[in-house]
Order: sequence, then structure tokens, then C-alpha cells
Amino acid sequence: MAVYTEIPDDELAAFIREYDIGELMSAKGIAEGVENSNYLLHAGAGTYILTLYEKRVAPEDLPFFLGLMQHLCKQGVNCPLPVADRKGRTLKRLAGRPAALVTFLEGMWIRRPTPDHCAAVGRAMAEMHLAGQGFEMRRENALSVAGWKALFAATRDDADRIAAGLAGEIGGELDHLRRNWPDRLPDGIIHADLFPDNVFFLGSKVSGIIDFYFACNDLLAYDIAICLNAWCFEGDNSFNITKARALLGGYSAVRRLEPGEFEVLPLLARGAALRFLLTRVYDWLNTAEGALVKPKDPREYLRRLRFHRSVASAREYGLDES
Amino acid sequence: MAVYTEIPDDELAAFIREYDIGELMSAKGIAEGVENSNYLLHAGAGTYILTLYEKRVAPEDLPFFLGLMQHLCKQGVNCPLPVADRKGRTLKRLAGRPAALVTFLEGMWIRRPTPDHCAAVGRAMAEMHLAGQGFEMRRENALSVAGWKALFAATRDDADRIAAGLAGEIGGELDHLRRNWPDRLPDGIIHADLFPDNVFFLGSKVSGIIDFYFACNDLLAYDIAICLNAWCFEGDNSFNITKARALLGGYSAVRRLEPGEFEVLPLLARGAALRFLLTRVYDWLNTAEGALVKPKDPREYLRRLRFHRSVASAREYGLDES
Repeated sequence: MAVYTEIPDDELAAFIREYDIGELMSAKGIAEGVENSNYLLHAGAGTYILTLYEKRVAPEDLPFFLGLMQHLCKQGVNCPLPVADRKGRTLKRLAGRPAALVTFLEGMWIRRPTPDHCAAVGRAMAEMHLAGQGFEMRRENALSVAGWKALFAATRDDADRIAAGLAGEIGGELDHLRRNWPDRLPDGIIHADLFPDNVFFLGSKVSGIIDFYFACNDLLAYDIAICLNAWCFEGDNSFNITKARALLGGYSAVRRLEPGEFEVLPLLARGAALRFLLTRVYDWLNTAEGALVKPKDPREYLRRLRFHRSVASAREYGLDES
Repeated sequence: MAVYTEIPDDELAAFIREYDIGELMSAKGIAEGVENSNYLLHAGAGTYILTLYEKRVAPEDLPFFLGLMQHLCKQGVNCPLPVADRKGRTLKRLAGRPAALVTFLEGMWIRRPTPDHCAAVGRAMAEMHLAGQGFEMRRENALSVAGWKALFAATRDDADRIAAGLAGEIGGELDHLRRNWPDRLPDGIIHADLFPDNVFFLGSKVSGIIDFYFACNDLLAYDIAICLNAWCFEGDNSFNITKARALLGGYSAVRRLEPGEFEVLPLLARGAALRFLLTRVYDWLNTAEGALVKPKDPREYLRRLRFHRSVASAREYGLDES
């Protein structure tokens, strides 16, 4: 659930008049995303999402995110298209915040994905990776190894309040990943947050990918590793190899993994689990009691991390090296 | 901002298949109403609101509310039309709660109403009162004098924590109103909660009236008295006679007030102010600190109550007896 910025009538009306989208007919604050305020707009020319960027998004990153969505749309990826106003601007201000209007995508996100959904998201991710080639702006991944070190430094003194020995376990994992993190694998634009709530389906088909506000340049296989964590565990944190096989199979059908990527997948999956473990630990320790947004349990990702640590080969994810 | 009930995928899909509204294309939780969970749905046949009724609505009242909306729609009032499923049912269950699907109304609610908006809402209210004639179900107003007594009993011991002497002032007011409350004036269906966020506009025209979950049978002039409180005070709680004149003028142009209604308007306006004062006092005293929905300041209605008490004649609301 999001925190909403209320937009004064006259400011919203004036803002919409700067676009060529017809008369504004309705504007509803929607309960999606915890980072930004989102309004669903019906206008004469169609349906749109108006996003006001709240504190957690760095304003200097917005041209990258908006430019990326434009690039991907042009390459045929179903993602929100930032709409330019009559002066050609996509990044604007409203109610004291950076703001952008993007096209609305029909579709539903899947609360309980099946292997078919996992296969479809694998294909869509690979298509997005291919479509990202040729995008000329760059953004470093702020939540890769260096970012994990900073998050660990900010949480190590209190982490054991969440689980006994947690700080030591994270520290050891971080050392291992830092020493072994690969750097000569195919890289490009990754989504970096491709969880089920960011992928819309109509029937069994992916109808849209949203929320590019963690997108960056990094190893393509790291995006796959994030999805193994995000799509292939059950509610009890058990790994579902059928879903992983479907996800990896869907991906490979569009973009074949190099042997080096295949080999290093368990390590990348540990890294992805550590990344979500660390941000959840940080949020857990830094959320006031009774806050609007209840932090998610970090221990889910501790269990997933331990699972990936036990994986000896990517074959255990259900994919044969091709 | 609402508390949301999450609906499992398969339950929502099965629910929608019971209607003849085409394929479900999207479902977004919207941040409207604090009483219920509302989803905005795009389906093949159009746009709908799906409401899950949470604790504060009594399930036994739902047939009245849904029947009233159907009746008013049939009479030409722009209000949400409850959609019947293939078996003819409008009141159903979903995710363990009573649920209903209604048509979506385009329009925006006005954060800062002008006198023109007030005139339009006056006309729309009068049209609704006329349209309500002939609706055969009845519902007593649970928040009239008897309800106020109960709310006062539940809050009198703690009310002075909000403002010194508040309990005494409410008690005195309640006595006065109880002794003088009229009962031989025109009655019928009233909305009873016609605040700006329940009235949608497209341009200067009322495009819809929503949220009938306080509607009941009561004096028609009491609905006007509620609107004088809801539409005709500024942010600093000063009374805006231009807005009141517009509202009363708009109403009278459609349904002429009887002399008795005109005379008693200041008393009814005191009652309406007391009604919102009492529910706000109750919510203020009974909301846990750090709760999701921040209670509204009761003292706004104390100031409005005092204003109406100072009014000697309805002429001070800007309307000449006609």
C-alpha cells in the first residue's frame, strides 16, 4: 500500500492540460507500489498512470528510467510508455514532486504463479534483455556487492535482533560473494526487481512489465538469479524445481545461456537472496512501530540464501547445460 | 485510505465469471473510502467498482443500499448501478466478505468547491430526494437523535480530553435538540453523507453521487443541513454565505422548501454538526495510536455547531423564504 500525495484540483487540471490526452474524466489513487504515489487516470484519449516520485527514488535517476521505458516500448516490450507533453517533456513536476504520466497496461499480476507463468516470465525477461541492447544511457546497480557492504555496515550491530547469529552469517556470505563475484559475463540492462507484482498477465500471456525503478546495467544472469528467488519458492520457502525449470527453459528458448552463466547461477542466486535479505533487514530495523507499511519478514530470504548455498550445480535448478 | 482485503486470484476469476461482463483485464485496489475495500476493474464490457464490505457496514443493511442504488438509477440519478450476476444476484460474497459489483462513474470530486459546485450539488440532492419517492424499502437513521445519545454515552467520560468542557456542551446541545427536533416535515430517502468526496463532477456538472452506505429515511431538510456543514465552511471553519446561498438556491429550484422546513434549518444544521462531532469524537477516542487511518479533528465540528447555534433565522444562510 502506498503513501499518497494529495494533488490539489487546480494543479492536476493544469498539469493534464499540458498534454494532448483529451479531457480528464477520473483520477483514482491506487494501492500499488510502496515507493511512489500512483493515480489511475481516465482521459479522453485513454487510460494512464500518473506517478509522483516520493523520497526513495533519486530524481537524478529518473531520466534513465523514463528513457529506458521509451526505448523498450520502441523495441516492442510491453511496458509503460512515458507520455510527452506538448513541449516534448516526459519528466515534470506536480504537487512539489517529480512526476511522470505513462500509458496504462491491462493485465493482472499473479498471486500464485504456476510453472506456465514462470515459463512466460522467463521468455519475457529474455526478450527484455535483448531489447535493452542499444539503450545508450547507463546506471550502475546501487544494490550489487558494494551496496550490500554498505547495507551490512548499517545493520550489522542490530541484525542479531532478527535472528541469532545473523550478522555473522551475512558477513561470511558477503566475503564469499565478494571474492567470487564474476565480472566477465554478458551484461546489459536488467530489471533487477522482476517480482510477480511487476509482471501483468492476460490469460497465460505476459501483457506487461512495470516498475523499472531498480533497473540498471549488470550481468544479465543476475536478473535470472533474482527471478529464481522471486518466482520459484513456495509460501513455506521450499524450492519448486518445476517452476525453476520452466523459468530457465522459457528464458533459454529466447536467449541461450553461455556456459559461464550457467555455471555461476547458484552463486548469483545467493547474491540475489542476500540483496533482498539485506534490504529487508534494513527496513525491519528502520521501520517505526505502527508505520503505514509493515516491513516484510527478512528471514524468508535467509532461508532462500541457505538453499542456494546448498546447491552444488545449476543442474539442481532443473536446467541441463545446453 | 482504505484497508484492503487481498482477493486470491482464483477466487476473483471465479467471481467475475459469474457475471456477463466479459473478460477481466485489470483490478486495482483504490484509495477511496475508509469503510470498505474497493477495486477498480476493467472488463470486456466496461469499467466497474468491486466493493468488499468490511466490518463497519451491517450486512443486513446491504439489500437496502443496493436496492436504493438500483431504484435511483432507474429514476435517472447518476449513481453506481449494482450489476446482477447471471442468476440475478447483486449481493454476493468474496474473500469471506459481502461483496457487490457496481458500474463505474467517471468524474472527479472537488477538493475546493466553488459556489457553482454548491449550486450543482443542491440541484442534484433535490433531484435525488424526488427520485427516492417510490422506493419501498425503509431504513431508520441510526445516526439521528437516539444514535447521538448512544454515542454521547460512549464518549462523555473522555470527551474533555479533546477540549475542556466538551462533554457538558454536547450534553446541553443534545437536550436542546431532543426537545425541539421536528417530526412533521417532509421525509423520504436521504443520502446522509453527501460530502464533496461523494459527489463527482465533469466540468461544472454533477456526473455522479456515490457511497450510499449511510442512506436512510429521514427528514429531507436534514440532508440539506448536512450539506450546509459539508460544503459551506472554509478550511478555517468560517461560514461562506455565498456557497450556502448557492446550495439552497440550487436545491429550491428543483424542490421548493416548505415554510416549516425553512424555519427549522438552523436547528437541523446544529443537529448535523453534532452528528459529525459525535462520530469524530468517538473515532478520536477509539483509534489506536499509529493506526492506518488517522482520525479527523472533532473540533472542526464543534466550531460549526457553535456557528449554527448563533444563527437566529435561516435567512442568515443566504436564502429568502419563498
